[in-house]
Amino acid sequence: MTDPEQFHVYDTTLRDGAQQEGLSLSVQDKLAIAGHLDELGVGFIEGGWPGAVPKDTEFFRRARTELNLKNAQLAAFGATRKAGTTAAEDPQVRALLDAETPVVTLVAKSHVGHVERALRTTLDENLAMIADTVGFLVANGRRVFVDAEHFFDGYRTNPEYALRVVRTATEAGADVVVLCDTNGGMLPDDVGATVRDVLAQTGARLGMHAHNDTGCAVANSVAAVDAGATHVQGTVNGTGERTGNADIITIVANLELKRGMTVLPDGALQEVTRIAHAVSELTNIVPYSRQPYVGASAFAHKAGLHASAIKVDPDLYQHTDPAQVGNDMRLLVSDMAGRASVELKSRELGYDVSGDRELVTRVTQRVKDLEAAGYTFEAADASFELLLREEAEGRPSYFDVESWRVITESRPGGDAVSEATVKLRAGGERVVVTGEGNGPVNALDHALRTAIGALYPEIDKLELIDFRVRILDAAHGTDAVTRVLVEMTDGKTSWETVGVGANIIEASWEALVDAVTYGLLRQGGAAIS
Amino acid sequence: MTDPEQFHVYDTTLRDGAQQEGLSLSVQDKLAIAGHLDELGVGFIEGGWPGAVPKDTEFFRRARTELNLKNAQLAAFGATRKAGTTAAEDPQVRALLDAETPVVTLVAKSHVGHVERALRTTLDENLAMIADTVGFLVANGRRVFVDAEHFFDGYRTNPEYALRVVRTATEAGADVVVLCDTNGGMLPDDVGATVRDVLAQTGARLGMHAHNDTGCAVANSVAAVDAGATHVQGTVNGTGERTGNADIITIVANLELKRGMTVLPDGALQEVTRIAHAVSELTNIVPYSRQPYVGASAFAHKAGLHASAIKVDPDLYQHTDPAQVGNDMRLLVSDMAGRASVELKSRELGYDVSGDRELVTRVTQRVKDLEAAGYTFEAADASFELLLREEAEGRPSYFDVESWRVITESRPGGDAVSEATVKLRAGGERVVVTGEGNGPVNALDHALRTAIGALYPEIDKLELIDFRVRILDAAHGTDAVTRVLVEMTDGKTSWETVGVGANIIEASWEALVDAVTYGLLRQGGAAIS
Repeated sequence: MTDPEQFHVYDTTLRDGAQQEGLSLSVQDKLAIAGHLDELGVGFIEGGWPGAVPKDTEFFRRARTELNLKNAQLAAFGATRKAGTTAAEDPQVRALLDAETPVVTLVAKSHVGHVERALRTTLDENLAMIADTVGFLVANGRRVFVDAEHFFDGYRTNPEYALRVVRTATEAGADVVVLCDTNGGMLPDDVGATVRDVLAQTGARLGMHAHNDTGCAVANSVAAVDAGATHVQGTVNGTGERTGNADIITIVANLELKRGMTVLPDGALQEVTRIAHAVSELTNIVPYSRQPYVGASAFAHKAGLHASAIKVDPDLYQHTDPAQVGNDMRLLVSDMAGRASVELKSRELGYDVSGDRELVTRVTQRVKDLEAAGYTFEAADASFELLLREEAEGRPSYFDVESWRVITESRPGGDAVSEATVKLRAGGERVVVTGEGNGPVNALDHALRTAIGALYPEIDKLELIDFRVRILDAAHGTDAVTRVLVEMTDGKTSWETVGVGANIIEASWEALVDAVTYGLLRQGGAAIS
Repeated sequence: MTDPEQFHVYDTTLRDGAQQEGLSLSVQDKLAIAGHLDELGVGFIEGGWPGAVPKDTEFFRRARTELNLKNAQLAAFGATRKAGTTAAEDPQVRALLDAETPVVTLVAKSHVGHVERALRTTLDENLAMIADTVGFLVANGRRVFVDAEHFFDGYRTNPEYALRVVRTATEAGADVVVLCDTNGGMLPDDVGATVRDVLAQTGARLGMHAHNDTGCAVANSVAAVDAGATHVQGTVNGTGERTGNADIITIVANLELKRGMTVLPDGALQEVTRIAHAVSELTNIVPYSRQPYVGASAFAHKAGLHASAIKVDPDLYQHTDPAQVGNDMRLLVSDMAGRASVELKSRELGYDVSGDRELVTRVTQRVKDLEAAGYTFEAADASFELLLREEAEGRPSYFDVESWRVITESRPGGDAVSEATVKLRAGGERVVVTGEGNGPVNALDHALRTAIGALYPEIDKLELIDFRVRILDAAHGTDAVTRVLVEMTDGKTSWETVGVGANIIEASWEALVDAVTYGLLRQGGAAIS
């Protein structure tokens, strides 16, 4: 186990990553992502800009009671004080204190052109702003990192001034000065040379913040570390403005597997594929299949030339063992694909199916067929477990649905309302129930609860807490296939199920019925069959 | 104009790029892509493996009459002869001659482990296979390049043998030996060091072929060029097996814009965005918005923070002028929107609002209020433009909706169906229309089209092509606020609109009405108000 202080893995998915076009995270999303980042084992989670962005202020407030971080420390991001005032009087700086985080990361200008033309102040006042703001925060018990914005372009334009920024920040008490390639135009050798220079001339602890505008964000980050940086910033899945930030997972995998460094807690690297996909779901960004290490295609081999050789010796054809990053090798035409993961997944859920080859074959085949139709079981363990039980011993069934209908209509001057009717048989009785809701799935949920509530009162403990929709074949507009994932909780634990269909309501209903069935199964309710 | 012989830009989109999961190119696709590659100005187009892949044999046959290349030469790809025969007798080698290309690129083993365990022959026989095959093709008038497969891993395992492969190929008459990082596990400094070593020890003309498994394919390619390689291979949009090949467009843009080299014909670099998108269409791969240089987001700025500075001096915030690669800067209106971004966005859409301070204030305030309620305008220019018009001169309105209702019901043994009723006034008439669909929004879309189709026949040209749903506050499950983005096209251009509501159907309806209104506005339909 390494000392997390020796090398900082600093995640900015929630702040710089949220600058990605089309991405807008709710406070709830941010809290959920922070939980995954902590599992990933990063040392620091930059949560946002309190004071400037109301949602971020709210995030830090809720984080104090709702986040229970095991590995990471929270960092609040903000700017140096305004020109011509003091840090103590600047409301933006005060908001950083109010966020009550152990770390504050300050963005500071280090490029003379940006000081003069964007900030519109003097070079000396900019240095005073840095010294004053860092000093004030340190005096108030904060650990301070300084993001030296546009550093590489600034260093090229006026190296003396860029170095003064680094020295000023360090002398005022900043722990790390992070050299930012804000516009993303650097190549690795130039990054390495600059980091080495700055280190030699200032002795400051340096970090790297890269963007991918030349396709080199990861390489630039690794080059900075090779040159002596001991703090690296990035985002999960490389989200961020323009071409995105450096992908923190690719960076840490390279450092651990290619450089032999230990930068994550023990065992964390094996979780990165799962975590990358979970963050994709939360940000509602389609996972990029070609993503290094964690992409669905990252260890996929098209058959042909080397299929048989791969079977003999997979190491000849992969640069690293996919298990090291929690991913799998896939042979795209081989029927071997899937069996192993079905067995592993079943074992994870508490079912030892290794002795029943036929069962594994049936389940693997159904998973393949369903995934080809648009289902995904990666994020829907409960639906997988129901499928496994169905093939092994028959699906637990607490009610038999006869039909359902849902009507949504506009109301003049108010929100639309939905009304659902569900007809089903439960406990030997036929039940016809109508429920209302502010949306069609909400109305179906209410109707279903009413219909079976008398027979299964434990349904009151179950609550639908998440509902996600993805259109799978975007090219066909509303004709496309829709995938719905729902998450339900009994207050202690939660589970996810999946539904797919041409009709969004039908897909939602399928996922809802799975979620309720699984919930009743967990509560130990007696199934009718 | 540079001499294309001094530096080879060698494209393998049609061969190695086609190894991408899910990608299957017809001969017609390949011919069309080859035309675009020639326009891009690459020196060499690797068309496929004649003899081994029937479609590729056909490609080379048809290319002789159907392709009229201005810049590029075609290369046929194949392997060295089988062990224990002669090149002249090997049908796979003869098929390379039959392709009648000026260039043949031969893949050869350079890693002792692969010779022994995959090829299952002796180290000496492998060298004989290389010498014999290269010599035979050269004697038959072909220019020969040799792809030294698994070179970097091989050089690490047994550098002596790897160097013997390079010398054998060169001595037999190969013009270029291409060092391949076949498994994609390299980092740039190791690539640079190896290329320098091999160059010093053999004097051979060297090329680079990189894969992106560490996220460093582009950086590895640039590092090889910096170290003396004068031939670089890649694919358009980085398609390829696993994580893909190096993206040839990012490489050439880096070499031209960051290294000051001239590797493409005059004027070609300004065409790369258009060509990258055209190849995306032909390969039916959704363009990656974050792709360096050519992605839709590559020069998009969200930041309310910098918007005012960008107005003053865009060069402060972009690493290169987007016009150099045929792309555009875009400003995204986001929840940090300020007056400056509203003004800039309006100008981009063709409205000069800088003289009307009150209008800008009203629009900025409405954007802020709506974004706080869950709307997003950065991906919904059409909704923003309707809002701007509404504040400036009143919203164009082609119909007045009175009410709508949609019913979705299950059908035993079949997919659920939806039926929508829309009541509206258009052209002085009240219309009540019912439409069916395989989902609720689809049904509403059909009903709306029928209701106004007689009055606005141009609605037939409008098609809904994308529909995205995001649940904004996941904590509340189906009680949450839903945001819907729809994209509509008139066959020539497309536009996006946004709707938000507690009810998913209501949010969809709002976005749909905006999309149709905007479409009618573009078609020049007369608004009733």
